[in-house]
Amino acid sequence: MNIVDIIDKKRLNKELSKDEIEYSINGYLDGSIKDYQISSLLMAIVLNGMTDEETINLTDVMLKSGDILSLKEINGIIVDKHSTGGVGDKVTLVLGPLLASLGIKIAKMSGKGLGHTGGTIDKLESIKGFNTNLSKEQFIKQVNDINIAIISQSGNLVPADKKIYALRDVTGTVSSIPLIASSIMSKKIASAADIIIIDVKVGSGALLKDLKSAKELSNLMIKIGKHYNKTIICIITNMDEPLGYNIGNSLEVEEAIETLKGKGPKDLVDVVLTLSSIVLEKVERISIEEAKEKLENNLENGKAYQKFLEFVDMQGGDINSLKVSNKIVSVKSNKSGYINKIDALKLGELAKLLGAGRQTLDDKIDYEVGIVLNKKVGDYVEKDEELLKLYLGDKDIDMSLALECFEIEKINKGKNELILDIIK
Amino acid sequence: MNIVDIIDKKRLNKELSKDEIEYSINGYLDGSIKDYQISSLLMAIVLNGMTDEETINLTDVMLKSGDILSLKEINGIIVDKHSTGGVGDKVTLVLGPLLASLGIKIAKMSGKGLGHTGGTIDKLESIKGFNTNLSKEQFIKQVNDINIAIISQSGNLVPADKKIYALRDVTGTVSSIPLIASSIMSKKIASAADIIIIDVKVGSGALLKDLKSAKELSNLMIKIGKHYNKTIICIITNMDEPLGYNIGNSLEVEEAIETLKGKGPKDLVDVVLTLSSIVLEKVERISIEEAKEKLENNLENGKAYQKFLEFVDMQGGDINSLKVSNKIVSVKSNKSGYINKIDALKLGELAKLLGAGRQTLDDKIDYEVGIVLNKKVGDYVEKDEELLKLYLGDKDIDMSLALECFEIEKINKGKNELILDIIK
Repeated sequence: MNIVDIIDKKRLNKELSKDEIEYSINGYLDGSIKDYQISSLLMAIVLNGMTDEETINLTDVMLKSGDILSLKEINGIIVDKHSTGGVGDKVTLVLGPLLASLGIKIAKMSGKGLGHTGGTIDKLESIKGFNTNLSKEQFIKQVNDINIAIISQSGNLVPADKKIYALRDVTGTVSSIPLIASSIMSKKIASAADIIIIDVKVGSGALLKDLKSAKELSNLMIKIGKHYNKTIICIITNMDEPLGYNIGNSLEVEEAIETLKGKGPKDLVDVVLTLSSIVLEKVERISIEEAKEKLENNLENGKAYQKFLEFVDMQGGDINSLKVSNKIVSVKSNKSGYINKIDALKLGELAKLLGAGRQTLDDKIDYEVGIVLNKKVGDYVEKDEELLKLYLGDKDIDMSLALECFEIEKINKGKNELILDIIK
Repeated sequence: MNIVDIIDKKRLNKELSKDEIEYSINGYLDGSIKDYQISSLLMAIVLNGMTDEETINLTDVMLKSGDILSLKEINGIIVDKHSTGGVGDKVTLVLGPLLASLGIKIAKMSGKGLGHTGGTIDKLESIKGFNTNLSKEQFIKQVNDINIAIISQSGNLVPADKKIYALRDVTGTVSSIPLIASSIMSKKIASAADIIIIDVKVGSGALLKDLKSAKELSNLMIKIGKHYNKTIICIITNMDEPLGYNIGNSLEVEEAIETLKGKGPKDLVDVVLTLSSIVLEKVERISIEEAKEKLENNLENGKAYQKFLEFVDMQGGDINSLKVSNKIVSVKSNKSGYINKIDALKLGELAKLLGAGRQTLDDKIDYEVGIVLNKKVGDYVEKDEELLKLYLGDKDIDMSLALECFEIEKINKGKNELILDIIK
């Protein structure tokens, strides 16, 4: 076998065998195949696609490149949750404790944020002392004890994906449904949960820009899940505007806390309840209405918030230490009208410029900075009324960038539809 | 500007600006852009193509990456010749001295062979003492004195092409009309001839497998030539079977000598006369029939061969030292019938296995080994009649590989058409 022949085959849009995929990936891992050869193969895959069988084979080869977690010591059905990445996406911080407060086992490994989207690990680490590096034994024990633990992805879980993802990031080969599906699914299968709920974000602030791609990705991930006897539930949600009002690590934890106390913004609550009621319906074999009622109750009665506090405490975090910047600037509208667009991508980039995100994995994050919106799409704004607050750190930014994120017009185009589809 | 944005643009099949092409190529040369980024960009170009303007801009950027030869000290119209590479292709060795014997100035820089096709420089270096590394001054003086000089491509002529070609070779990104056109043309324009004749090989033994691609490439090269006020003449010739009977360095020089003495095989003579008569017609402003007659005369009367001897002598070669292996094995047919196919690619690979060619540019060549065919496509062969002779060196090969190069059938499918098109 020869990597140039394999690249040629994919260039000519032919199906690669499992042996050929294995040869390519393992050769890349052991250094016998070079990064410039894999990046050429990746671009051929991006442009010519992969069949479902190729994608399952790629997932399997990546999965087996490292350790595969065994969570058999956890009693009960284990739930994991994933998001394809959005701006202001603090769903995990709410959904995890909420489901845990109803007895569901949440065992989640999470990544750090890169680019314009934040990572759950970064948000949790904005809580002083919060330890995301538990041992496997601590992780399992905590899930058994309090139903929830969230840790950083371990070093030797799916090393092939880690290496390939880093290469894709710098070679323009991120946008590929089969590559995205195999990357997500290899990590999720290696993390060993029984039910995996995936929030597929679509819109200007997401990797996927259109509903068609989001559906394609969802169906493909469900197909891969079936191959491993896993239940995959995808909900496709709008990411044209940020989720909720807060963007930035500490700020998002604050908004998650409000939501856990029953005082969350409508869009965030809707996504959380939609995702979690499907899980509860599935695990407890109750109706979706019953599930929703139980979940709403636990947001109202403080049990979800209590679970969050217990979870933070158990992983060493000091919730009282949570701090946001006190250098706050208000950005006001320069005209009156209806807000027809709030560009999530641009706001994500702005938050990154403020220091809330990373350009490369080595960058340091400023947990205290970020953005708090005062408006959502569909709202009316008066001239000189506040559009948002910037929570500044030590980085200078051009304030006009914030105004560019808004489209304000005389006509009202209405609110964004939030839950676009549920695929299971 | 940012290389990932540029890759993304080409991935989305948009036209790159000259600035973007310049940024990419110069960044690759200075090391600020990595090989894995360029290989991803190259694959996007292979699959999405380039517009004519992009191709001209790429040619120009590559051309200006190094020295551009000035041959203004040569008196008269300067002719250069290029082949896209075939098996048994010794056309330059005949055409050069033949045209030079009629007063045409041949100033040619040539490359070493790689893969299954030989290079003119290797063939010349099979003549002991032949020096292909003349200084620019020696090169110009020799062309002025005896009308012909052929040297190795100098180190600083089109360094961008050198670096990119090496990368394409190992990343499955060779097969692209715009990339092939800009690679050939940047070198040819840098070599400063006035008339450039290009033998575009098409068929199983060539880079281009079909006539449509060959025409596309020819038209593109002519268009690029126009941009630089150069006359480009393309002839498209068949490379389904090897040209002539001999494959291998010394063996090809021997066949070239026979041809220069007026005793060449029909196909080789046809290609040589077609190419050279177009040049003579153009330079001397005579009819193609007159041109052909003059050329045939000089093959008959020994003048072309005399020019070859003068040329070899001038560059230090000792023609009497030319040696072929005396370890000869005859391969006989295992059945009777008409030869309907002689696989040029497989024979080229076989010659390489014997030691006649290189896998990488560092490999050493055995000048004395090779293959001499006894038959051409359309010929009849008896069972146990000789198909070819192998001239062996110190490498063991599987003799059955030779038989696999032939398709022998009861029905006669006729000879291959040789000259497929002339585009100018």
